[in-house]
Amino acid sequence: MRISARNLLKGKIVEIVKGATTAHVRLDVAGTVVTASITNQAVDELGLVVGAEAYGVVKASDVMIAVD
Amino acid sequence: MRISARNLLKGKIVEIVKGATTAHVRLDVAGTVVTASITNQAVDELGLVVGAEAYGVVKASDVMIAVD
Amino acid sequence: MRISARNLLKGKIVEIVKGATTAHVRLDVAGTVVTASITNQAVDELGLVVGAEAYGVVKASDVMIAVD
Amino acid sequence: MRISARNLLKGKIVEIVKGATTAHVRLDVAGTVVTASITNQAVDELGLVVGAEAYGVVKASDVMIAVD
Amino acid sequence: MRISARNLLKGKIVEIVKGATTAHVRLDVAGTVVTASITNQAVDELGLVVGAEAYGVVKASDVMIAVD
Amino acid sequence: MRISARNLLKGKIVEIVKGATTAHVRLDVAGTVVTASITNQAVDELGLVVGAEAYGVVKASDVMIAVD
Repeated sequence: MRISARNLLKGKIVEIVKGATTAHVRLDVAGTVVTASITNQAVDELGLVVGAEAYGVVKASDVMIAVD
Repeated sequence: MRISARNLLKGKIVEIVKGATTAHVRLDVAGTVVTASITNQAVDELGLVVGAEAYGVVKASDVMIAVD
Repeated sequence: MRISARNLLKGKIVEIVKGATTAHVRLDVAGTVVTASITNQAVDELGLVVGAEAYGVVKASDVMIAVD
Repeated sequence: MRISARNLLKGKIVEIVKGATTAHVRLDVAGTVVTASITNQAVDELGLVVGAEAYGVVKASDVMIAVD
Repeated sequence: MRISARNLLKGKIVEIVKGATTAHVRLDVAGTVVTASITNQAVDELGLVVGAEAYGVVKASDVMIAVD
Repeated sequence: MRISARNLLKGKIVEIVKGATTAHVRLDVAGTVVTASITNQAVDELGLVVGAEAYGVVKASDVMIAVD
């Protein structure tokens, strides 16, 4: 499947914290930690585990720009 | 200003394309291009120019995870 | 590629309107028209054309519920 | 109230799972299950119950397009 | 129609700028200007005009918190 | 840090409810309660407490418009 989302950040899963319904998955992307808040169900269905390779996927309209 | 958004991706602006109301700003973040769709107004107000350092900012609930 | 987004709505593309930077793509999903606002670049890269099969993809945290 | 969101998906609630703060509501929309992640508070305030008719509401800028 | 979105900001429309596909609608909400980026189609369909009363509607998961 | 997000709503924190992974923070913004769903981690890192001044921050593409 190819998707319109413009941003695919390749990394390695470094942490998975499951809550009651919502999980936080953290990826190391070239030294920067990227946090994704997704459903527990998605974690299970994709078989996500610490150490696995994965992508953080972000739609361009969800990216803001900041400057110092 | 400090913000709750979990993801700050430091990079350099490599392209700014302004449309009628919406601009696409592309950052090089450690070799990966990150695209942000923001208002033309924000581009002007922040004084964004190609070559400048900037951050891509993404709320954790806007990050999905994909696997091959 | 498999993705954490919980919602995949299979349909057929019925309209593509390109703006200066942003395109609106409309899918017929079982008789309901679904509108996606994506980048022109994504339209070109995925080779989207009217009549083709495609999916509308939506993260669960982007779905609201309404009642009459 | 009429809203600018372009996507109203009419369906029937098939599951409500409440977490500590966040609930997952699943709708059957013409045979496809649509999952919404909303606040527990909204579930209570709207009086959502399994079997009731409801709409999944999605802003066009939150819809991505994917192809096989 | 009642909606799960937690944030309804009542205001008056002070500006509508239409682009090729995307419009920016600005509301005065108790002295603060709130900007919404919506489709031109929604502007037409809702009959939005400067001076009219309207609500800015935001899902709780789309609100970040910042501190000085 | 200055950010491209068009909407900064200045207010005072009136409630913080932490769930397992996700917190709901409520601000009083000129008499209107604004609810933000953010990570527990962000609440801790920003040192958010009831009574403190804070901003609700919203990207323009996450604001919808509704009319009665």
